[in-house]
Amino acid sequence: MSGVWGNNIRLSIFGESHGKGIGIVIDGLPPGVELNLDYINKEMQRRAPGKNNISTPRKEADQFEILSGYFNDRTTGAPLSAVIWNSNQRSKDYDSIKNVMRPGHADYPGYVRYSGYNDYRGGGHFSGRITAPLVFAGAIAKQILNKKNILVGSHIKCIENISDDELDFVNIDFNMLKEISNKSFPVINDEKGELMKEAILDASSDLDSVGGIIEAAILNLPAGIGSPFFDSVESKLSHMLFSVPSVKGVEFGVGFDITKMRGSESNDQYFIENDKVKTYTNNNGGITGGITNGMPVIFRVAIKPTPSISKKQKTIDIASKENKELEVHGRHDPCIVQRAVPVIESVSAITILDLMMEKGEI
Amino acid sequence: MSGVWGNNIRLSIFGESHGKGIGIVIDGLPPGVELNLDYINKEMQRRAPGKNNISTPRKEADQFEILSGYFNDRTTGAPLSAVIWNSNQRSKDYDSIKNVMRPGHADYPGYVRYSGYNDYRGGGHFSGRITAPLVFAGAIAKQILNKKNILVGSHIKCIENISDDELDFVNIDFNMLKEISNKSFPVINDEKGELMKEAILDASSDLDSVGGIIEAAILNLPAGIGSPFFDSVESKLSHMLFSVPSVKGVEFGVGFDITKMRGSESNDQYFIENDKVKTYTNNNGGITGGITNGMPVIFRVAIKPTPSISKKQKTIDIASKENKELEVHGRHDPCIVQRAVPVIESVSAITILDLMMEKGEI
Amino acid sequence: MSGVWGNNIRLSIFGESHGKGIGIVIDGLPPGVELNLDYINKEMQRRAPGKNNISTPRKEADQFEILSGYFNDRTTGAPLSAVIWNSNQRSKDYDSIKNVMRPGHADYPGYVRYSGYNDYRGGGHFSGRITAPLVFAGAIAKQILNKKNILVGSHIKCIENISDDELDFVNIDFNMLKEISNKSFPVINDEKGELMKEAILDASSDLDSVGGIIEAAILNLPAGIGSPFFDSVESKLSHMLFSVPSVKGVEFGVGFDITKMRGSESNDQYFIENDKVKTYTNNNGGITGGITNGMPVIFRVAIKPTPSISKKQKTIDIASKENKELEVHGRHDPCIVQRAVPVIESVSAITILDLMMEKGEI
Amino acid sequence: MSGVWGNNIRLSIFGESHGKGIGIVIDGLPPGVELNLDYINKEMQRRAPGKNNISTPRKEADQFEILSGYFNDRTTGAPLSAVIWNSNQRSKDYDSIKNVMRPGHADYPGYVRYSGYNDYRGGGHFSGRITAPLVFAGAIAKQILNKKNILVGSHIKCIENISDDELDFVNIDFNMLKEISNKSFPVINDEKGELMKEAILDASSDLDSVGGIIEAAILNLPAGIGSPFFDSVESKLSHMLFSVPSVKGVEFGVGFDITKMRGSESNDQYFIENDKVKTYTNNNGGITGGITNGMPVIFRVAIKPTPSISKKQKTIDIASKENKELEVHGRHDPCIVQRAVPVIESVSAITILDLMMEKGEI
Repeated sequence: MSGVWGNNIRLSIFGESHGKGIGIVIDGLPPGVELNLDYINKEMQRRAPGKNNISTPRKEADQFEILSGYFNDRTTGAPLSAVIWNSNQRSKDYDSIKNVMRPGHADYPGYVRYSGYNDYRGGGHFSGRITAPLVFAGAIAKQILNKKNILVGSHIKCIENISDDELDFVNIDFNMLKEISNKSFPVINDEKGELMKEAILDASSDLDSVGGIIEAAILNLPAGIGSPFFDSVESKLSHMLFSVPSVKGVEFGVGFDITKMRGSESNDQYFIENDKVKTYTNNNGGITGGITNGMPVIFRVAIKPTPSISKKQKTIDIASKENKELEVHGRHDPCIVQRAVPVIESVSAITILDLMMEKGEI
Repeated sequence: MSGVWGNNIRLSIFGESHGKGIGIVIDGLPPGVELNLDYINKEMQRRAPGKNNISTPRKEADQFEILSGYFNDRTTGAPLSAVIWNSNQRSKDYDSIKNVMRPGHADYPGYVRYSGYNDYRGGGHFSGRITAPLVFAGAIAKQILNKKNILVGSHIKCIENISDDELDFVNIDFNMLKEISNKSFPVINDEKGELMKEAILDASSDLDSVGGIIEAAILNLPAGIGSPFFDSVESKLSHMLFSVPSVKGVEFGVGFDITKMRGSESNDQYFIENDKVKTYTNNNGGITGGITNGMPVIFRVAIKPTPSISKKQKTIDIASKENKELEVHGRHDPCIVQRAVPVIESVSAITILDLMMEKGEI
Repeated sequence: MSGVWGNNIRLSIFGESHGKGIGIVIDGLPPGVELNLDYINKEMQRRAPGKNNISTPRKEADQFEILSGYFNDRTTGAPLSAVIWNSNQRSKDYDSIKNVMRPGHADYPGYVRYSGYNDYRGGGHFSGRITAPLVFAGAIAKQILNKKNILVGSHIKCIENISDDELDFVNIDFNMLKEISNKSFPVINDEKGELMKEAILDASSDLDSVGGIIEAAILNLPAGIGSPFFDSVESKLSHMLFSVPSVKGVEFGVGFDITKMRGSESNDQYFIENDKVKTYTNNNGGITGGITNGMPVIFRVAIKPTPSISKKQKTIDIASKENKELEVHGRHDPCIVQRAVPVIESVSAITILDLMMEKGEI
Repeated sequence: MSGVWGNNIRLSIFGESHGKGIGIVIDGLPPGVELNLDYINKEMQRRAPGKNNISTPRKEADQFEILSGYFNDRTTGAPLSAVIWNSNQRSKDYDSIKNVMRPGHADYPGYVRYSGYNDYRGGGHFSGRITAPLVFAGAIAKQILNKKNILVGSHIKCIENISDDELDFVNIDFNMLKEISNKSFPVINDEKGELMKEAILDASSDLDSVGGIIEAAILNLPAGIGSPFFDSVESKLSHMLFSVPSVKGVEFGVGFDITKMRGSESNDQYFIENDKVKTYTNNNGGITGGITNGMPVIFRVAIKPTPSISKKQKTIDIASKENKELEVHGRHDPCIVQRAVPVIESVSAITILDLMMEKGEI
């Protein structure tokens, strides 16, 4: 199984990079939610390629067409489905290399998993393009969460060795986070952002690629969301985050750095202020015992360098079982971190929506 | 929901630290598996406290009693259930502090989540003690995986600032990993292990605690296990790993460090040797596109410092809604990393068993 | 998989007739529900054998022991588990016939399903005894539903060829249904009940057995519960009802007889009375389009004659692969319909609780 | 939730009668299955309306368009999705009656369930038209089962008071069942079939409708499929069967009539013939203890009369909360039983495929 997720809302994704189209079915949405289609479109454009010189010049319209579950401008409560039609494919590009397993891609594991029957063109169902329907669903989830004043925002924490400014985990200004998230290159410090772009272009000119870290924050989530053990907020979020292609690490709060602290430092001590329970620090990223404590939920996601590079690489031909060399010339992204930002936010928003529904809050 | 997990095998855990007992139901095990109960017992003793001066002196026998699903020394295929009876509880210890929310613990989120009806004694259902049934299930999963020559092993990668020697991600000797895993303090370099223990004792004498990182490897897993997107190996493993209390980060392969590499370095290039597909490096930890590629599966897990410390901490009284100070004197673990090792291995083994069954390999 | 069920509450059952004990884990119960243990006990005694001359003289105490999820007389919200210890087993009875497949029982299918490793004593995990934990869970579900004034009641519609009086599907008196359900032999017309008991004793004296039909009604369920297609109320209820051993048919409203009607008769026509929507008839048993319409939910369940009979039967020896004859002398129930009544009510109550939680009504 | 089903394959359906289209995502299909699209088309035509004078003259092309999961004439193993575009709708027909709740339809329960936001045109997501994607999926399931020589066949057991000839539950000829199933009006005895058609036309001329019973048989299913309790074959099949609109009863083997038998008759006694275990009778319909025993799986499904009739009916206006009368003139089916046959076969085939995969047989 691969494409079905969720307890309270349930997603079912489908599609291949070079097939007719890609899409999603979202079951369990509350009825009567008025959708802002322009907002959905805007979110999808954040992910879409071909925007600038740090993304692939490949153009994908990423226009969605809603097929069901939407009537008189509102959700009906029945499964809401949408298709994004494919176009601008150069499927021929892939024919000559169908047996040549691209390093860093799913070509080889996918070949074994599906006994060679997988659609190999452009990564097929493994393509990052399949995240477009997730952004569609995420844009709906965000709209529903917004009505509860819940914001899922993020910034690019680093690209290769360039880091953005630090986020204050305890006090995060709602409007500031929203503004940062909405930047075309979402960083706190735009000068650092320029250095990051330079690093990307530098890699690009080397026929190479870079990765980075996305840091996300979820604001105004009430305490008491999630469950101990198998349905902890960390379990549910990480499950979804690791389903995004190229994610290799997920950490909450200060994450791995918490292992350098002592308990007296890592424990987030409580106080009451104006009848609201808060913590002085937020090393645990708003989650203890798997459940939200009312502080901002903070996490970071490691995105590996784009596996598609034009540099010569060693690999194998799966048909002839021979070692060989590969040079993939094409329209690659030298970095996908900035395009992954809306995807990370989307899968987070979807997960939070599911958890809020579990608790009966939505 | 919290205590049910799995697609092909399904776990259902229950119990509280100071209730009658804790336990697990494991549904979907293949019938006819001969179980080595001594091995299960040995695994559970790895997790049990009271073994030495770096663990709590609290003694928990952790003797399991199998109630069903086991007949004539073999699994029957019907749900296998086991109970571990509680004993040696000092429930009175907790009465005076039931409204005082211990920082770093689930007391406050749990109070909100369950409207104050949760069993607060010793953390109740949130207690790390509930991982004992997971080790029971893990010991069964390991036995089944062993028959396929699959090994789930691990070592303590670091405690506070002390690091163990590096693991070679490409070539991991089966017997060496097994031997390390089975050490009472599982490290590659025992001298580093001694330094780690000193760091633990040092924190303990400061009435404080430390955390650390566990690094695990899964050997001989075939290529082609897992699925793209929602059932990626990383999604499934991280879901389970983050369900273990105190885990704050999970990364695969070189993890977050992959963001400092360029694509030409992070891509694990392929070659064929003796008809077997291998990669020169293993930066992706044996998983690309969410699916195993036949190389060792490698991941690291960040364990936060034990939240139970004797140092004075600021907190709140949830009944009176007042700020107050807390000193918890008791039988605390200054570090739970070494006790978490079999838990991390267990939930990994269970997940891998589930994935292997999904693929029809078991 | 076999023993895990549910979306919003989740049940996990375990145990064998002649093992140490049988039990259940119930995950997802709302926290803070005060439980009446006497009521649970009373419900379990309705199912327990050894009560009278129309049941097996085998005595089973069916005393439950709650292990978790229950604290200070209330549910905690954590998984609630209970064990019913086995006793009064005569496991030796089964040794001599372990390879002789009893007709009408699960012996042969179970042997194939579990490759011969199933616990064959007394039906093992296939035993009707495993319904005792379902009655335990059902008694909890009923208590929660009662607070919403929802009643799950039933009567024995017929035993062999003897039928009880008709239930008026449109107007069912709450107290009358409650009273009937609570009879030791739950029928509307006690004279018919006496005739049914005679039919049972008659079969018993012939070393034979009889079956019957249970008709159930759920009162005060609001309109709008359930979903179209895969989670229709009929789908969910029938799934659970057919999981009860010996059930061979399930029908809603007038059931199969609706096929003899014309649409103008079978359609339940609406009217409004005192602001409440009602139907003149209730041929559809309170469900149209898979969703409740506010009328009483009505269904019938066919229970086959007890497969355990003392009469000589033809069968096979699975080890020697030979045809042979079988006479099982033992403490059989000549009829299990009256003991199945609380089981049918219980699984229905559990299902309705799950559906009510899905809709956010509980 | 409503539109997601399954453990090993997972279906996700979507669409409304008068929306853009309806469709399905099928996840978990084995890769490399060559599909006969003509066969799928033929199956869908069996369900499609407008074929003759006993169906609605409404024409629905029911042409499917596969969007994903299918490459080079074979399944890829990735989610296979298909859309059936809507056309020939007369949405205006429904505008004037949108607040008038049609008896026997889901209008009123759906209105409550979805707070009035459901698409009311032509029944919206509740429309029988949504079964077309199930027939699409069923045609794929049948092709996969056929390779194991498993046949899902059926006949119309009765229409109103006219019954077809009896099926011999013990010996069912493979080719004969296939042939009957493939008839345009699938009955054993065509003379009875003609009488049935007369009954349908008779109802039609009375502006009324009729229902009937479909009897299905599954041949060559191995013993040992299914599980006790919650995943019994009866539970799984009935869950799916009751998800088909208009189904009000499901019974296995002799079904409700088993309650008129004694145990000595209802028990299917075993014998071995040519090394194959068989039963002399098949009153239990090939299933005991929830698991197949190797005999034909037999069940019957009650289909209620089409709720759409032109006769005047009493009902309510949900907006004005007034009682009123309704006459729906339109293109109704006087009977949907013959069109439901491929739907019943399809959901059965899908369920059996799922169960076979669970057992590792496919």
